[in-house]
Amino acid sequence: MKCKFMKPLIVTLLVIFVAQNVFSQKIENRLAELKIILPKVQPPIASYVNAVRTGNLIYLSGKGPTSSDGKFISGKVGVDLTLEEGKAAARNTGLNLLAALKAEIGDLDKVKRIVKVLGMVNCPTDFTQQPQVINGFSDLMVEVFGDKGKHARSAVGVGSLPANMAVEIEMIVEVD
Amino acid sequence: MKCKFMKPLIVTLLVIFVAQNVFSQKIENRLAELKIILPKVQPPIASYVNAVRTGNLIYLSGKGPTSSDGKFISGKVGVDLTLEEGKAAARNTGLNLLAALKAEIGDLDKVKRIVKVLGMVNCPTDFTQQPQVINGFSDLMVEVFGDKGKHARSAVGVGSLPANMAVEIEMIVEVD
Amino acid sequence: MKCKFMKPLIVTLLVIFVAQNVFSQKIENRLAELKIILPKVQPPIASYVNAVRTGNLIYLSGKGPTSSDGKFISGKVGVDLTLEEGKAAARNTGLNLLAALKAEIGDLDKVKRIVKVLGMVNCPTDFTQQPQVINGFSDLMVEVFGDKGKHARSAVGVGSLPANMAVEIEMIVEVD
Repeated sequence: MKCKFMKPLIVTLLVIFVAQNVFSQKIENRLAELKIILPKVQPPIASYVNAVRTGNLIYLSGKGPTSSDGKFISGKVGVDLTLEEGKAAARNTGLNLLAALKAEIGDLDKVKRIVKVLGMVNCPTDFTQQPQVINGFSDLMVEVFGDKGKHARSAVGVGSLPANMAVEIEMIVEVD
Repeated sequence: MKCKFMKPLIVTLLVIFVAQNVFSQKIENRLAELKIILPKVQPPIASYVNAVRTGNLIYLSGKGPTSSDGKFISGKVGVDLTLEEGKAAARNTGLNLLAALKAEIGDLDKVKRIVKVLGMVNCPTDFTQQPQVINGFSDLMVEVFGDKGKHARSAVGVGSLPANMAVEIEMIVEVD
Repeated sequence: MKCKFMKPLIVTLLVIFVAQNVFSQKIENRLAELKIILPKVQPPIASYVNAVRTGNLIYLSGKGPTSSDGKFISGKVGVDLTLEEGKAAARNTGLNLLAALKAEIGDLDKVKRIVKVLGMVNCPTDFTQQPQVINGFSDLMVEVFGDKGKHARSAVGVGSLPANMAVEIEMIVEVD
């Protein structure tokens, strides 16, 4: 009786194992294709943590853009930074969020959906192109995750941000 | 044995069917009573989607108020718009969110609860009546959904919004 | 047959009962140790509710700091309030949120995790110490709940807040 089920069980396990290897590290491969190297994880600059999981949702703390020396890219978009520089800062912030996400879940292939994003742009009161700035972030998510990267979003202008960072972005991610 | 259970089963199914028809389209009827016609769904003005579902929650992207020609109602509340105009803009934004919600879930009767709202008012730094502005939105939700429309909320003033829209509101909705 | 299971059942129930009493009111005891008396629950200042539960998550409406007479502590941090006063206002806001949370769930021992916090500081456009201000709130959560109090967070500067309150903070809490 035992032996009768042994063969199909082994075959099934082998199929699962092979499939896992074929499809594994899809996102890591995608990052490599995009020539993206994730930055070092930013430590929280205060009394909180980078990520909290509840059920299948990961809530990530707001992050900002950093230069290669680890300092924040600072200034107001529309004054100190051009629209293009603001967009690049939003993309850079996306990399910092992906680094924090990877540190939390171990493997970016576990991402089922980028659910919700709040993108805050440090800008003067007459600035109106927040969506174009935050697109730097949103486009990155779609490049990396495809349809799974498409998210609900609000983009707004705020008067000031910690350390005068150019943008601050937080997100909620659904994982398997 | 089979026949013994057949009759009560049929009666039960009939009762459910009749009840469904009596209570169906409750929210559509309520909208008609309130003489509310939902606007056309606003397309996202950038690289994101209007809504993402995770479990029983729908996360809706931030929306703003639009006039009948589809353009954003713009300006700062307290400067370019009066408090009453700001409140009307918040109600108008609620209609745009309901249109986006309906496009996502098909039928507003599936709404179990409006869970959480973030209402952002485009206003100068000395403006302090954000709650009264966002009430235009909150009152609409209670008019349409009754107790199910009562939500947790934050109302804040922001320095600037996309396309200089007067308010931007996002919400989380629980569905059946 | 009945009697055979009666004894272990009674023993089990007794163990559960004793354990409940030993561990019960842990957070209330902790509040007493910290000499914290929760304030009266602030009523919402508009058409919404203080808290909404969906699944195991409680979404709390944004709250501000209040003085002992129930009035909001108002002014801009960095102008009308010092950094230390802003931090105290954030801690005070935390007490108001805990009071609202307790009113919703009955017993703070049900808190499984403070999941996500959005801390908004009413401040001028050149203010950059929002994290230090919101730490007044975050430190309180860790004092009261220990590791369960560690949360994901965004801290931002906004141009204006309802009633000119110094900070507004909202949070999401996971409960058992």
